[in-house]
Amino acid sequence: MSFVLKSTEERARLWKPMFARELPEMPFHVWPETGDPQKVRYLAAWQPPENLAEVFPNLEVLFSVGAGVDQLNLASIPESVRVVRMMEPGLAEGMIEYVLWAVLSYHRNMFHYARQKREHVWRGEPNVSSGLFRVGVMGMGALGTPVLEKLSQFGYVCNGWSRSRHDIQGIRSYAGSDELDAFLASTDVLVCLMPLTDATKGILNRELFTKLPKGACLINCGRGGHLVQDDLLWALDTGQLSQAVLDVTNPEPLPADHPFWNHSLIALTPHIASSSRASTGGEMISKNIMKYENGMEMIGEIDRSFGY
Amino acid sequence: MSFVLKSTEERARLWKPMFARELPEMPFHVWPETGDPQKVRYLAAWQPPENLAEVFPNLEVLFSVGAGVDQLNLASIPESVRVVRMMEPGLAEGMIEYVLWAVLSYHRNMFHYARQKREHVWRGEPNVSSGLFRVGVMGMGALGTPVLEKLSQFGYVCNGWSRSRHDIQGIRSYAGSDELDAFLASTDVLVCLMPLTDATKGILNRELFTKLPKGACLINCGRGGHLVQDDLLWALDTGQLSQAVLDVTNPEPLPADHPFWNHSLIALTPHIASSSRASTGGEMISKNIMKYENGMEMIGEIDRSFGY
Repeated sequence: MSFVLKSTEERARLWKPMFARELPEMPFHVWPETGDPQKVRYLAAWQPPENLAEVFPNLEVLFSVGAGVDQLNLASIPESVRVVRMMEPGLAEGMIEYVLWAVLSYHRNMFHYARQKREHVWRGEPNVSSGLFRVGVMGMGALGTPVLEKLSQFGYVCNGWSRSRHDIQGIRSYAGSDELDAFLASTDVLVCLMPLTDATKGILNRELFTKLPKGACLINCGRGGHLVQDDLLWALDTGQLSQAVLDVTNPEPLPADHPFWNHSLIALTPHIASSSRASTGGEMISKNIMKYENGMEMIGEIDRSFGY
Repeated sequence: MSFVLKSTEERARLWKPMFARELPEMPFHVWPETGDPQKVRYLAAWQPPENLAEVFPNLEVLFSVGAGVDQLNLASIPESVRVVRMMEPGLAEGMIEYVLWAVLSYHRNMFHYARQKREHVWRGEPNVSSGLFRVGVMGMGALGTPVLEKLSQFGYVCNGWSRSRHDIQGIRSYAGSDELDAFLASTDVLVCLMPLTDATKGILNRELFTKLPKGACLINCGRGGHLVQDDLLWALDTGQLSQAVLDVTNPEPLPADHPFWNHSLIALTPHIASSSRASTGGEMISKNIMKYENGMEMIGEIDRSFGY
């Protein structure tokens, strides 16, 4: 059996010696070099090669090097192949930093002051205590939960929404479509940290925005596909939303002539909120391989019926 | 005896009923109404009236409604009058939020991405772990200390510099002029939270900037008078500093034709990092009056020989 990495040079450089230490019996190949493709049991990639079943007929596990698996066409991956997403502490740390930065920026009027600077205007707004500021996070998984916990430490009123109910101290948990409207009605800043699935594609749309208090802020750290981009422009231009912070767009990179670039109420970052650290990402995968070979449950294996 | 408040209408509205409850024997006047000026023992103000000794000849305590007392001309205040600055939890909360926002913004390249947005450029920078990022805070008092503690919780390497040594867990304390150079040499982001005194006026100057690692960032949340503004322009234009975040300037408001407004490497906010909450500020003062009348030490009384 063997392992193939189809990813960046940095990962190859860091993972090869680490695999040699942790899994010395396992041949380690860096795509496009694969050794005998019949022997490849494990593949780590952002995108697997096309015709996966033909290229690696004996593949058992596909590891995504990212937090999501929405970049994969699951239908094209044989049912027998297990799919595992990246669960790595650095992913959560980066996301906590990003969301806290975005929430603080909005709460403390920093986007407003940046606009005032361009107009040479010196005028302070009253400071509102974080305890009067409600943050709602959609998605209470491996990223949403630590983000909510950190925001809560800063005194923000924190609510979470997800498919099933979660019990996290200090966080009000709303569950399922029945409770979505109540969640939205008590949200000043909406943070999207959901997986992208058929059920969540386009969920950030005009109908949802109208259920938020007028003048709310949207932070999208999920995927570009969660957002109906024209509906965001409508919401900002009518004042239904007063600010958006987007780390993801559709497509990426955002085309140079896209209206988001020049929109004064949209802050844009180039999908940098969080990335798995190359070093610890490799450790997570080698540990999962050991678990798998010992018949144990892997961390981050997706449920293909839900798509995440 | 009586109390005079010379401040905003909001403070007058909030403090009057609170004083009536806490100090029912104490007449409460709102400037310019003062009752019999001979009876005024306590004054709370940002700026006292001119000729203070003549206006209130029996004044015993002057309370500043701000964190600093540098707005006062101490020489014009009779030696017999005690001077107390505002020590209020909301001041530290606001400052923690501001400094964390500024440090996260720099650490995560947010100012850079805002500039890229104006040029329609989508290009991510590698994420650097907070554990590889060194923040140095000048001033380890009522604001500097809680700010350092919070930054430390985020994994930043935290150093503090002040007149005397402070023992705070996880924070390296540098003390006095002998240790300033070593402090500066290990600082990627310099945060100024010192009081403004004769000893600290103009301390943020060309000589100091050259002792920082090339490309460092300056965050000034102290006073505009700490900074030699032309030296900052020199440092940014030569690349010695790569970014500045200024909440204070000299003068304030910043004149509309000042070069800071159009400088792409300067983020400006209109002195909003932190303000005492009107409600709790009044409680602090009424408690201090009770302490004073019982012969106890007041919280925040300044040492006039140091000027803070």
